[in-house]
Amino acid sequence: MRELTNEYLEEAIEDSKPFASDGNVNMSLPTFDETMKDMLGVSIITPEKECYSAGDHKQYIPMQSTSKIIGLMLALQDFGKDRVFQAVGMEPMGDFFNSISSLEYHDTSKPFNPMINAGAIAVSALIKGQSPENRFKRYMDFLKDITDNDDLQISEEVYEAEKANGARNRALAYFMQSTGTLVTDVEEALDLYFRMNSVMMCCDDFARVGLFLARGGRSPREDEPLIPPHHLRTVKAIMMTSGMYNSSGHYAVEAGFPMKSGVSGSIIGAIPGRMGIGVIGPAIDKKGNSTAGGALVKKLSLDLGLNMFGVDRIG
Amino acid sequence: MRELTNEYLEEAIEDSKPFASDGNVNMSLPTFDETMKDMLGVSIITPEKECYSAGDHKQYIPMQSTSKIIGLMLALQDFGKDRVFQAVGMEPMGDFFNSISSLEYHDTSKPFNPMINAGAIAVSALIKGQSPENRFKRYMDFLKDITDNDDLQISEEVYEAEKANGARNRALAYFMQSTGTLVTDVEEALDLYFRMNSVMMCCDDFARVGLFLARGGRSPREDEPLIPPHHLRTVKAIMMTSGMYNSSGHYAVEAGFPMKSGVSGSIIGAIPGRMGIGVIGPAIDKKGNSTAGGALVKKLSLDLGLNMFGVDRIG
Amino acid sequence: MRELTNEYLEEAIEDSKPFASDGNVNMSLPTFDETMKDMLGVSIITPEKECYSAGDHKQYIPMQSTSKIIGLMLALQDFGKDRVFQAVGMEPMGDFFNSISSLEYHDTSKPFNPMINAGAIAVSALIKGQSPENRFKRYMDFLKDITDNDDLQISEEVYEAEKANGARNRALAYFMQSTGTLVTDVEEALDLYFRMNSVMMCCDDFARVGLFLARGGRSPREDEPLIPPHHLRTVKAIMMTSGMYNSSGHYAVEAGFPMKSGVSGSIIGAIPGRMGIGVIGPAIDKKGNSTAGGALVKKLSLDLGLNMFGVDRIG
Amino acid sequence: MRELTNEYLEEAIEDSKPFASDGNVNMSLPTFDETMKDMLGVSIITPEKECYSAGDHKQYIPMQSTSKIIGLMLALQDFGKDRVFQAVGMEPMGDFFNSISSLEYHDTSKPFNPMINAGAIAVSALIKGQSPENRFKRYMDFLKDITDNDDLQISEEVYEAEKANGARNRALAYFMQSTGTLVTDVEEALDLYFRMNSVMMCCDDFARVGLFLARGGRSPREDEPLIPPHHLRTVKAIMMTSGMYNSSGHYAVEAGFPMKSGVSGSIIGAIPGRMGIGVIGPAIDKKGNSTAGGALVKKLSLDLGLNMFGVDRIG
Repeated sequence: MRELTNEYLEEAIEDSKPFASDGNVNMSLPTFDETMKDMLGVSIITPEKECYSAGDHKQYIPMQSTSKIIGLMLALQDFGKDRVFQAVGMEPMGDFFNSISSLEYHDTSKPFNPMINAGAIAVSALIKGQSPENRFKRYMDFLKDITDNDDLQISEEVYEAEKANGARNRALAYFMQSTGTLVTDVEEALDLYFRMNSVMMCCDDFARVGLFLARGGRSPREDEPLIPPHHLRTVKAIMMTSGMYNSSGHYAVEAGFPMKSGVSGSIIGAIPGRMGIGVIGPAIDKKGNSTAGGALVKKLSLDLGLNMFGVDRIG
Repeated sequence: MRELTNEYLEEAIEDSKPFASDGNVNMSLPTFDETMKDMLGVSIITPEKECYSAGDHKQYIPMQSTSKIIGLMLALQDFGKDRVFQAVGMEPMGDFFNSISSLEYHDTSKPFNPMINAGAIAVSALIKGQSPENRFKRYMDFLKDITDNDDLQISEEVYEAEKANGARNRALAYFMQSTGTLVTDVEEALDLYFRMNSVMMCCDDFARVGLFLARGGRSPREDEPLIPPHHLRTVKAIMMTSGMYNSSGHYAVEAGFPMKSGVSGSIIGAIPGRMGIGVIGPAIDKKGNSTAGGALVKKLSLDLGLNMFGVDRIG
Repeated sequence: MRELTNEYLEEAIEDSKPFASDGNVNMSLPTFDETMKDMLGVSIITPEKECYSAGDHKQYIPMQSTSKIIGLMLALQDFGKDRVFQAVGMEPMGDFFNSISSLEYHDTSKPFNPMINAGAIAVSALIKGQSPENRFKRYMDFLKDITDNDDLQISEEVYEAEKANGARNRALAYFMQSTGTLVTDVEEALDLYFRMNSVMMCCDDFARVGLFLARGGRSPREDEPLIPPHHLRTVKAIMMTSGMYNSSGHYAVEAGFPMKSGVSGSIIGAIPGRMGIGVIGPAIDKKGNSTAGGALVKKLSLDLGLNMFGVDRIG
Repeated sequence: MRELTNEYLEEAIEDSKPFASDGNVNMSLPTFDETMKDMLGVSIITPEKECYSAGDHKQYIPMQSTSKIIGLMLALQDFGKDRVFQAVGMEPMGDFFNSISSLEYHDTSKPFNPMINAGAIAVSALIKGQSPENRFKRYMDFLKDITDNDDLQISEEVYEAEKANGARNRALAYFMQSTGTLVTDVEEALDLYFRMNSVMMCCDDFARVGLFLARGGRSPREDEPLIPPHHLRTVKAIMMTSGMYNSSGHYAVEAGFPMKSGVSGSIIGAIPGRMGIGVIGPAIDKKGNSTAGGALVKKLSLDLGLNMFGVDRIG
């Protein structure tokens, strides 16, 4: 077992970097290019607010699918578990995150879970607000609160690209409208979804989201309860079974703690009671996960004893 | 939070029994009939060998799919992780446990995971032995060791019924032979699989399997390492993402610890470092899980603080 | 064998009407209601311009999917077979006409055939014209030509309903945009498709479309070649294998000539060299075909010897 | 339009031979090897018993899937249309001939049609007889009758290979047993199916099967009715929509008459009232059809005016 220090993290970064060559940078994201392929950064924050980091941890990238867990938390807060899971399931799915067949064949009334695109769009449509602007503002306020970072902002460039390349997500949303799953305005629901994906964050911010989940929902600013712990249990359980696209089973075995990834190469990890982890590594594999980032979280799990299925803590 | 006592378990049984009416007894199992619908039993064993039980915990029923985790442990011991996961995946699947389409459409080279029938057949085919008899004997010896129960035996009646009604499993096995996934004799592989499903156990036995997993692989008899802990981490992670058929996501959220169920109404639970749980409740839902048993494990999780995604243990 | 007369057709109508009770009127179409359930009409026109009709043959209903063969003829004329079948396949499909899984799983580059919604949208997108209005005008001009009916017009009410209830078709179109199959503006392609479906016709008009196909592409007005016969062979072959939704095989067996149906209860039949048939019968079955109309065309085939797989004409 | 002569056929063979290079010989068939790649033969027989042939028309190859239409004729004779189509559908399917998903997803009670493997196995199981030997004898007697060839026999070598490599067909058959579609002994049904596929025929034999279908069921020996014409209409209609694997739509467009192919490179064509065609060309494409043979039938259709969707015969 290793001790968690900045030096250890630097070493872990060096060990994991070579895996970047197994992946490719997602060129459909504006400002993403080949020069980012070897980037790798990590931040870890403990409940005691100790912060460790290494590598390119100051690099800002769009949230992409990591936004799905923020949307889910807000929807749970707004409507409670029963209502949210009327609109979306909580079962893992063996298919790609943008599968449309899974909607048609299995249960046309709802997407498998909130971690796939269709599910996240259905969940986003639940977030309360008088107007699209207001709904996105609530999202941003919540995100600023839990990251303790008032400077977070959307990348207009990423948002425009999301809209321009949104055909597959439009197909998913209109399909859900056709089955009655999505009852609000489709283009409005998509617009919020695209905005959520376009917020720029760095490893420290991702790690703070992880810590918020790991600590049971207390505001980092005033240490007051912001969201009931049982909602966060729900989010973490779904991250464990479905957070890493259709490699979620692999990461449950090889890392063993709740994580959520995005095609920008971002990963948020939440080890209950112990720490939040934020990783960026823009080279992703075919399933959408950061290759170097994935290698890194597996190494952290092993070296720091983070695997929840282990019994290392037994006397 | 409640204290774990026999009285508490009796109370929990009473609270959960009414859910039996939501399910049906699997009449294709010999000796199973309507009179078993309201049966419900539970045993819990701690690392300190304290044993608590209530209800019909002395009732013997066939293992059915709970045998899948025993087969997986043996195969991991015999061949190691790399070889086993060449034959089978480790990803959860959004489909029914006997889906054949999932083999055809997704990756014909291997079934999604070892908890679905196709996957378990592929894994059983790996268990070493000079002859079918010898392979099954190894299975029984291992099972007797980890349950500390030399009296375990197969029900010939159940085994004959498995064979007679095995058309769907034959279809899965021959399909895997046609794609090159199953390279051993199909009927031999099926025969071992059918035998494994037909071993009779009661709640105490199921709980001891759970404890073996929870303690990290030490023999209950001599407290010596029987199987490396990292293999058991793998098994528990797969139980979490895929152990409860296509309600695994639901149980990850609502109970939050590794479990495996069988269509006989059996459930094995393993809470790392804390306890093994064995449940029987023959009334099952459409997905194959005990309805009263499922209600019971969710109640135990809540009352005893077993949800691994909770942060109850943080100071 | 019966002789084709108005009296015979009246008799055939009476025999077939009871099958209306097996179907239901498509209430999503404006102006369609229960009172239309028992309507049944037929017109038959021969190359010699003899016209026979019976029942509600003067009733106007929207073309719905019968428009798909008009769009296909125009696209073939505009671009030729090679280009059209780069955008769409020509294989029958075992799935419902609005299946989206079939796009995802089989060959994401193109829909199965031009008789399913996705295929017809892709084909409509090919129709030439400087503007959406101009493209629809070309469609109407062609339709007026081949039906010899300058009074044909769109129902604005049906068109508005198509647009309002078009979520599933939008999903199909955006899915095709996401895979690169649809390269033109999605909403424009859909708008043309919705307009095409909304043109009102009666049995005489439907029969004239059938005759145009049966005669090999000569204008009914001036008897001049309007479209090359080989394109019409293509259309008729596709009608035979795919024209009656996923009952096309049934109708190939039971009637044995090229037909195309619509969910308004319309059917166009084309017996090469012999006649065109137009049928309306608004009560449709679950697959989308008129129940009484279907019974009628089967009876006509038998009584008039229209089954192309028969050998009645051999000496 | 060309005149049908031996010289014309020789010319057509030469023109079509180069397409053999687009395909591959099915090496899983015993005695099939690379030297057969360029083989191409054709025979055409008219109702007047005029016989034209060219190329390798004397080469014997196993029937493979062309046996499916013989089995269907026998089953229709034995049980009638209603009973046969309780066991199997008559709809074309957009999937590969050995698809198992299509059984699971669409209608588990029966396979799509009798031209796919699952459907043909279900149909073969219907053929009457006191014993497996007797059932196969009836098949052979019928086949000898309609081909007027008492020398037809099975290749034991092919039959053994079919059995040895039958895993996929076993999977299909056991799947159908599990859904109750196949109620007879699975291995017996498969054995008959394997035997049927293993009968050796040459172009003349294949052409005579085609002629039997084209003439409406009269025995070539005594010119007496052997099977009712309406059953043959059914068989020809299903050949048109489903006879050429999942290229059936393509051949309906490009050739326009009922055909059935086999993976040995055999093709049977039946032009109602006009002729029977037999083709062999062992190089097959990925869908299972002879590439040179396919080119040849398309050429014959064009040159001899065989396309049933044409209007060439109209005055």
